[in-house]
Amino acid sequence: KQGPSIGVVMECDSDLTAMEEAANILRRFDVSFEMTVVSAHKAPTRMYAYAQLAAERGIKIIIAGASGVAHLPGMLSALTTLPVIGVPIKSSNSIDGWDSVLSILQMPNGVPVATVALNASKNAGILAAAILSTADDNLSNKLADYKKGMEDEVVSKVNRLKEEGWKNSFD
Amino acid sequence: KQGPSIGVVMECDSDLTAMEEAANILRRFDVSFEMTVVSAHKAPTRMYAYAQLAAERGIKIIIAGASGVAHLPGMLSALTTLPVIGVPIKSSNSIDGWDSVLSILQMPNGVPVATVALNASKNAGILAAAILSTADDNLSNKLADYKKGMEDEVVSKVNRLKEEGWKNSFD
Amino acid sequence: KQGPSIGVVMECDSDLTAMEEAANILRRFDVSFEMTVVSAHKAPTRMYAYAQLAAERGIKIIIAGASGVAHLPGMLSALTTLPVIGVPIKSSNSIDGWDSVLSILQMPNGVPVATVALNASKNAGILAAAILSTADDNLSNKLADYKKGMEDEVVSKVNRLKEEGWKNSFD
Amino acid sequence: KQGPSIGVVMECDSDLTAMEEAANILRRFDVSFEMTVVSAHKAPTRMYAYAQLAAERGIKIIIAGASGVAHLPGMLSALTTLPVIGVPIKSSNSIDGWDSVLSILQMPNGVPVATVALNASKNAGILAAAILSTADDNLSNKLADYKKGMEDEVVSKVNRLKEEGWKNSFD
Amino acid sequence: KQGPSIGVVMECDSDLTAMEEAANILRRFDVSFEMTVVSAHKAPTRMYAYAQLAAERGIKIIIAGASGVAHLPGMLSALTTLPVIGVPIKSSNSIDGWDSVLSILQMPNGVPVATVALNASKNAGILAAAILSTADDNLSNKLADYKKGMEDEVVSKVNRLKEEGWKNSFD
Amino acid sequence: KQGPSIGVVMECDSDLTAMEEAANILRRFDVSFEMTVVSAHKAPTRMYAYAQLAAERGIKIIIAGASGVAHLPGMLSALTTLPVIGVPIKSSNSIDGWDSVLSILQMPNGVPVATVALNASKNAGILAAAILSTADDNLSNKLADYKKGMEDEVVSKVNRLKEEGWKNSFD
Amino acid sequence: KQGPSIGVVMECDSDLTAMEEAANILRRFDVSFEMTVVSAHKAPTRMYAYAQLAAERGIKIIIAGASGVAHLPGMLSALTTLPVIGVPIKSSNSIDGWDSVLSILQMPNGVPVATVALNASKNAGILAAAILSTADDNLSNKLADYKKGMEDEVVSKVNRLKEEGWKNSFD
Amino acid sequence: KQGPSIGVVMECDSDLTAMEEAANILRRFDVSFEMTVVSAHKAPTRMYAYAQLAAERGIKIIIAGASGVAHLPGMLSALTTLPVIGVPIKSSNSIDGWDSVLSILQMPNGVPVATVALNASKNAGILAAAILSTADDNLSNKLADYKKGMEDEVVSKVNRLKEEGWKNSFD
Repeated sequence: KQGPSIGVVMECDSDLTAMEEAANILRRFDVSFEMTVVSAHKAPTRMYAYAQLAAERGIKIIIAGASGVAHLPGMLSALTTLPVIGVPIKSSNSIDGWDSVLSILQMPNGVPVATVALNASKNAGILAAAILSTADDNLSNKLADYKKGMEDEVVSKVNRLKEEGWKNSFD
Repeated sequence: KQGPSIGVVMECDSDLTAMEEAANILRRFDVSFEMTVVSAHKAPTRMYAYAQLAAERGIKIIIAGASGVAHLPGMLSALTTLPVIGVPIKSSNSIDGWDSVLSILQMPNGVPVATVALNASKNAGILAAAILSTADDNLSNKLADYKKGMEDEVVSKVNRLKEEGWKNSFD
Repeated sequence: KQGPSIGVVMECDSDLTAMEEAANILRRFDVSFEMTVVSAHKAPTRMYAYAQLAAERGIKIIIAGASGVAHLPGMLSALTTLPVIGVPIKSSNSIDGWDSVLSILQMPNGVPVATVALNASKNAGILAAAILSTADDNLSNKLADYKKGMEDEVVSKVNRLKEEGWKNSFD
Repeated sequence: KQGPSIGVVMECDSDLTAMEEAANILRRFDVSFEMTVVSAHKAPTRMYAYAQLAAERGIKIIIAGASGVAHLPGMLSALTTLPVIGVPIKSSNSIDGWDSVLSILQMPNGVPVATVALNASKNAGILAAAILSTADDNLSNKLADYKKGMEDEVVSKVNRLKEEGWKNSFD
Repeated sequence: KQGPSIGVVMECDSDLTAMEEAANILRRFDVSFEMTVVSAHKAPTRMYAYAQLAAERGIKIIIAGASGVAHLPGMLSALTTLPVIGVPIKSSNSIDGWDSVLSILQMPNGVPVATVALNASKNAGILAAAILSTADDNLSNKLADYKKGMEDEVVSKVNRLKEEGWKNSFD
Repeated sequence: KQGPSIGVVMECDSDLTAMEEAANILRRFDVSFEMTVVSAHKAPTRMYAYAQLAAERGIKIIIAGASGVAHLPGMLSALTTLPVIGVPIKSSNSIDGWDSVLSILQMPNGVPVATVALNASKNAGILAAAILSTADDNLSNKLADYKKGMEDEVVSKVNRLKEEGWKNSFD
Repeated sequence: KQGPSIGVVMECDSDLTAMEEAANILRRFDVSFEMTVVSAHKAPTRMYAYAQLAAERGIKIIIAGASGVAHLPGMLSALTTLPVIGVPIKSSNSIDGWDSVLSILQMPNGVPVATVALNASKNAGILAAAILSTADDNLSNKLADYKKGMEDEVVSKVNRLKEEGWKNSFD
Repeated sequence: KQGPSIGVVMECDSDLTAMEEAANILRRFDVSFEMTVVSAHKAPTRMYAYAQLAAERGIKIIIAGASGVAHLPGMLSALTTLPVIGVPIKSSNSIDGWDSVLSILQMPNGVPVATVALNASKNAGILAAAILSTADDNLSNKLADYKKGMEDEVVSKVNRLKEEGWKNSFD
């Protein structure tokens, strides 16, 4: 098994901007990944093959993003036993993102998708790292450092707000 | 080609009650049909096979019903060039039916699904008949008779209301 | 019967931009069509006449687009036995498009409208071609080619993404 | 002109229960009315005739109720210059009433419908009386009495609550 | 009684742009009106006085527009027996206009508001004219002419589309 | 000033069941209150009087509940400078409670209403107590005890679940 | 106890613009306040400490603003007996603000949050002043003056509209 | 580390029925778990302790269910680096479940929650098993068997439908 740990896939290349943050955060945690287009609606046979080979290639988790009616995450979950993380994406033709959110989240019993917030591919990446960290103490430590970093950033903002006053913080 | 003209399929046998009206109306119009379970989420390989053999078997239109996240109509449309009619079904775990409606309706360009109203499998059957009638004058006449029958029923209700008064019509 | 096969109609000429893709895709499939304004709310008598003459003129399918409260598709379905494809259109005064979607989709039993996604007039055109293809093998082949083309495009995007890397694909 | 002042119409006789309160309140105000079924979707020709004869028959206001996709009020407004009051009705197959509300309320400029609350046929009747009262001081006085009656009822409830205590008011 | 026939009021002077079309259409129909700010939330005593004097001053119909939580139309209806037409207005801080629509439309039985579409002050003006026309044949004729004008405009658009072709109509 | 501290008011006596918990919790905290009907829509003059006398009578906080279009809390806030707590109530004719929630919550700047959850009159009572506790250490201690009681209840449930096992907890 | 009376806190410094109006209005009423970042999600230990020390430091009311999933107001209410005012904030990634509104408003019984309208931090400030005014007649007078000022502003707008005419008011 | 692998927690013991399926499916996969109440709103100190000790006790994944405003999953994710699976629960006082769904799903970047469908605690259990299976081939095989079982069940339903006819399947 020599593939990457994470398959970051999207329905369409127009989803690339929305999915970029997943890649950035995975790189930060030194988690190997691949990033490609797997289209449930336009290339369903390729999707079928991708799902059926994923585990064999060494992929442990699939992150799948799609906008509008988003069948990709759910279909990948139907076709594999790997954990699938779904990223709803708000596109110009969607109905405020509700279509994407609901068509990823509301999967029937037996076929779960781990859904994150609208456009939250960064959280999808962090969640994938957290999943791998259940068997990887090193990665677990990196996640703890990341969380500590967020907390430090809040504290430094608090201090800046206190020193400069909140009026200045608009400058 | 000796299969039926219409494939009436549903994600789960619990959708049978909701889909029964499609069968009833197709029988009324003497349109041949089959009725079976084709599950996108629980038996995706069978769904692929069903879709890819459908045209070859003589099926001209697929009517697909599903509740909750309803990927079946859209995936069948992705896997075949036949017209696919989608029937959103409101189930107990759905969010008021919105999940089913949006995950069938909002298909991306290139892969249409002809969506009917929530639970409206009867309309799916009428629409299928109307589609076949574009090349079948006999069926077209049956549809005109059916429409005439609805109109007559309204008129007879109007008359009964006039004769009996609207108070009696609650009896 | 010498009219075109498809009547592409819209409530208002301001819907023309949204409906243009229906015309483009029908031309691509060499399906004859006409494109005109038929207004349920501003010229109801004309709508009545259009619907009642449509079949006689040789029209086989009506594609009807409307924004806001969209009564045109449903009323055309009430006035004819032809299959009617409804295109909800999101306009500036609509409530996020919900008004248009719901007033086309939720037709009562007996009077179906084949509803497509918000602004998806292209899908309306493809669906019309798929309906005609149930009695036209030549058109059926064109649809298969079109679907094949979508799949090829996905594969070429996959390859470009692989060769150039996903960072370059933003250029 | 010898018809009644108000035409109370509904898409379907299943709407009769919801529309009964309009009749009751009109009778209370001694406003003449007729109550009948006028179906936009199942008997559109009759609807055209009804609308076009209404003014001639002496009808001054139309109250139109419909559930699900409710095209009746809007189409009547398109076909006549009379004020049309629309009553959205929540039926079992509607999406929580949103379909009926939006398909009556969101009429385009030029073709108004005076929409009242979901199932509020009683308010439709009161509104019709208020419209007639703009040229009928007698009716205006009846409306003032009715309003006074509501106020008195509140005061008597207040007093009963004060005398008996709010615990008793559950008995 | 020497006041105007119609009181066009709004919660806030920021609603003036949205309400301007009501004034324009009333002027077109030669219906006398006044236009002023009556604020339920910021000047409730003035609102109370306005409502209680309205009929006495000769006002026959009140058109009331408000955005966000819109209590003005309903409170005016509570304070007078005149017909009140409510215009929901979508402002920047509203939740997509839903707050304004629902807080005007869903009035309890006994206290009706004739609600028109979001931002549809023009329809409010036409509806007011239609109400007055129930006792004014001259105004009724003007409304019929206006409706005829809308129909003629559709026909001329149809013709232009036919002559120039729909491609040119984008120029 | 000899009136109670809290005025618990409701639009209609049918709201009494929903508002009962506010009374119960206020009694528990020994906070004096009155409970009455104050109707914005059916007895607006009484509402004006109630609001304008409230402070003078010694009332410090108004809790106002209403269903459907709920103008009472906002109008009371417009008519007084006291803090007003609004309780949206879900009634049978409301649109899933959205109308009540939005018509209480979305007040314009300058006229606040402290909105609690749908049907949460108990929380309205606790909030009123918390407001009074800003100047009453005794009441503050009672609130701390109440909070401690909730925590103890959780711990006792945790223990029972541990001892009996979660299967038994269904008995 | 020497802290300020009001703690104005926000989940993130990006909420500062939305929360600024709370500070402005508190300053206008001469109510002491502090303004800082307290993050439920990124610095939960700090949030815990802030809540537990607040009363001891003399804080009487907490105003908490957050966008997207907004847990801050509710968690602060869980951790203290002070009245907590929640300000939902609409951010770019939220679903039209519904996520923020619902995750602040719908608190379970026992743990109230006084929710104000979307982005209405100004109303949060006024509400805080109204709460303090229940034990501070001086502040109560300032609120009455403020309310009087709003009313005067309406009257002056009314007069300007009358003098200049509503056409000029667009200039 | 001798605690169970999975912590199944819920805001309130009234959530127990909804969460039972998570326990059943984990038992089926022989995954060790504990099931307890951890309340963000009623016992926040206990929640802090639970989260901070979880990893140390050997817990690898937390499944957290809550209804109404559901802060528990997000707060646990804020307090630990373990993967947290959130289960929205529809309760009688929620607004159709939207409050629970949105307050779990829409977490800000940096603090992910893996959200499953409304009431889908069974899927939460399967997802937890899938996460553990990324480092446990035995568990991975069990998941494949489970998936195979679902597929077999579909096939047997298909056969029964074919043999008995769909009419019989209602018996």
